[in-house]
Amino acid sequence: MNIPSALRFDGHLHLLDQRKLPEREEWILCTGPGQVVEAIGNLAVRGAPAIGVAAGYGLALADGDLSAVEADAVRLVNSRPTAVNLRWAVNRVLQAARQAAPGTLAAAMLAEAAAIHREDQAACRRIGELGLSLLPAHPRILTHCNAGALATSGIGTALAPVYLAAEAGRDPQVFACEARPVMQGARLTTWELARAGVNVTLLVDAAAAFLISQGKVDLVIVGADRIARNGDVANKVGTYGLAVAAERSKVPFYVAAPTSTFDAAASDGSAIPIEHRAAGELSERFVGQVSASGIKVWAPAFDITPAALVSAYVTEREIRPGGRGHSS
Amino acid sequence: MNIPSALRFDGHLHLLDQRKLPEREEWILCTGPGQVVEAIGNLAVRGAPAIGVAAGYGLALADGDLSAVEADAVRLVNSRPTAVNLRWAVNRVLQAARQAAPGTLAAAMLAEAAAIHREDQAACRRIGELGLSLLPAHPRILTHCNAGALATSGIGTALAPVYLAAEAGRDPQVFACEARPVMQGARLTTWELARAGVNVTLLVDAAAAFLISQGKVDLVIVGADRIARNGDVANKVGTYGLAVAAERSKVPFYVAAPTSTFDAAASDGSAIPIEHRAAGELSERFVGQVSASGIKVWAPAFDITPAALVSAYVTEREIRPGGRGHSS
Repeated sequence: MNIPSALRFDGHLHLLDQRKLPEREEWILCTGPGQVVEAIGNLAVRGAPAIGVAAGYGLALADGDLSAVEADAVRLVNSRPTAVNLRWAVNRVLQAARQAAPGTLAAAMLAEAAAIHREDQAACRRIGELGLSLLPAHPRILTHCNAGALATSGIGTALAPVYLAAEAGRDPQVFACEARPVMQGARLTTWELARAGVNVTLLVDAAAAFLISQGKVDLVIVGADRIARNGDVANKVGTYGLAVAAERSKVPFYVAAPTSTFDAAASDGSAIPIEHRAAGELSERFVGQVSASGIKVWAPAFDITPAALVSAYVTEREIRPGGRGHSS
Repeated sequence: MNIPSALRFDGHLHLLDQRKLPEREEWILCTGPGQVVEAIGNLAVRGAPAIGVAAGYGLALADGDLSAVEADAVRLVNSRPTAVNLRWAVNRVLQAARQAAPGTLAAAMLAEAAAIHREDQAACRRIGELGLSLLPAHPRILTHCNAGALATSGIGTALAPVYLAAEAGRDPQVFACEARPVMQGARLTTWELARAGVNVTLLVDAAAAFLISQGKVDLVIVGADRIARNGDVANKVGTYGLAVAAERSKVPFYVAAPTSTFDAAASDGSAIPIEHRAAGELSERFVGQVSASGIKVWAPAFDITPAALVSAYVTEREIRPGGRGHSS
């Protein structure tokens, strides 16, 4: 299988510019922390694990003494507000720097960043193996946004079991939500799955609940940007709606994430700051190709809402109670 | 208030070309049924009540004898598959034609089409009055797609109570979902509400469930394309997901529709055919301005999924049960 990669390191850090996908495969060369701060902030690299690995290398590329490294660490941690891996990875490299013997600052940081990278790759594979045990023989899987290879430095989190199922000849079928407004599902998930030869179908976010209710998927699996101590999950907007719909249709809802995503400092979801994006992402025209070419789509124009979910029907004759009862 | 209109009739039928909104206000002149069939099929006019009124006038514009009218009626009924008003309105005008005295065919059809038009306008106002009784003093309302003035020949269905609340100085606040892929919420609902001076905020479809869970709306109100005998509602894809989210957060979910939307021939939602749209609407780039200018947006990048909705967390260490329990 030809599974793409979000980054590679060869002394410099190379980041696949995910803003250009699926139209062009361009790489960003990072020779210092500033370029990594910028790439994280402008979403050239995204996905909590990939951000963590990139930030780790970013700090390892810092020039100067420990106080300069400390300043770069602050800039890196502040480049995106939600991803806990970012802080975790930067702190690991920073600790290595603080504990480095004289003259070994750069080498100590680089060794730690490389360890984070290796561990992320191994974690992805292990998530895939554990997740595979949850899948039926020929799984039909709904996912949101992109928690695939492009979101990590390995084979992904939510998509890791998909890739291992495909390797095992179990012909997984993936339904990918677009993830408006930035369209990471349409642009990235369809691209990486199509490239790896995995069967993928694109749908608008608004169709996902209906897809679930129609018995068309066996399970939902998503990644996470941060998981609070009580298990509340911060992830791409739209995740919550999928979870509610999955619960109502008794379809399992799985969250695939490395343990570094768990944030013991956040007691529950309300302690996690939610980033808001610029208004222009919604109100301006979308520029660029929306998905990989030649993929399938599931595009119902309408859906069916069961009467049991309706509080009341307002007609020109009366307010007629629905299945939920008028006041509930 | 300056509430726009989807159509007007002055001997010919004039349809506001809603595909051009919000960028340009262009009208389509229809002098015969063929142009109306085309305008319904290509979504220049959309919204079940507006389609019904347009189709009624469309048949009234038929040229020739009763057999020609019957043929045009079939073409009109087949121009969109889901809207039950379409069939209902066409059949009303067809019945008028069949019962017309010799030499009065055209006049009989026109009288019936005009009656449908007047009745739709009155129905919208009455829906507004009844719906207004369901609203709190300063309502915060979530709606989907466009069930406003542009979807009817009057002041709308789901938006009718909003307009009456605004007239009454109750300062309604509307949250409008985009309704990908055709973006009727972004393009049409924000346009007609902004034009009428109503406070409107745009959000991506994927953010709607989270908006509801955060206590930011008092109720959800949507239109309907068809309502089955048991109360199941066919409406723009995404409606079902809003209903599930509203149920879970104990927020009322109202469906505003004229009684002509109820289809006694459909025993439940499974009897309603669901139109699927062309793949290109998803996979090709979106062209055109996405929303009215200068409106607010609500644009969280992430949302929070409560642990109670998670079946399991898949980490590199273990499969950790979530709040739903691993197997449910």
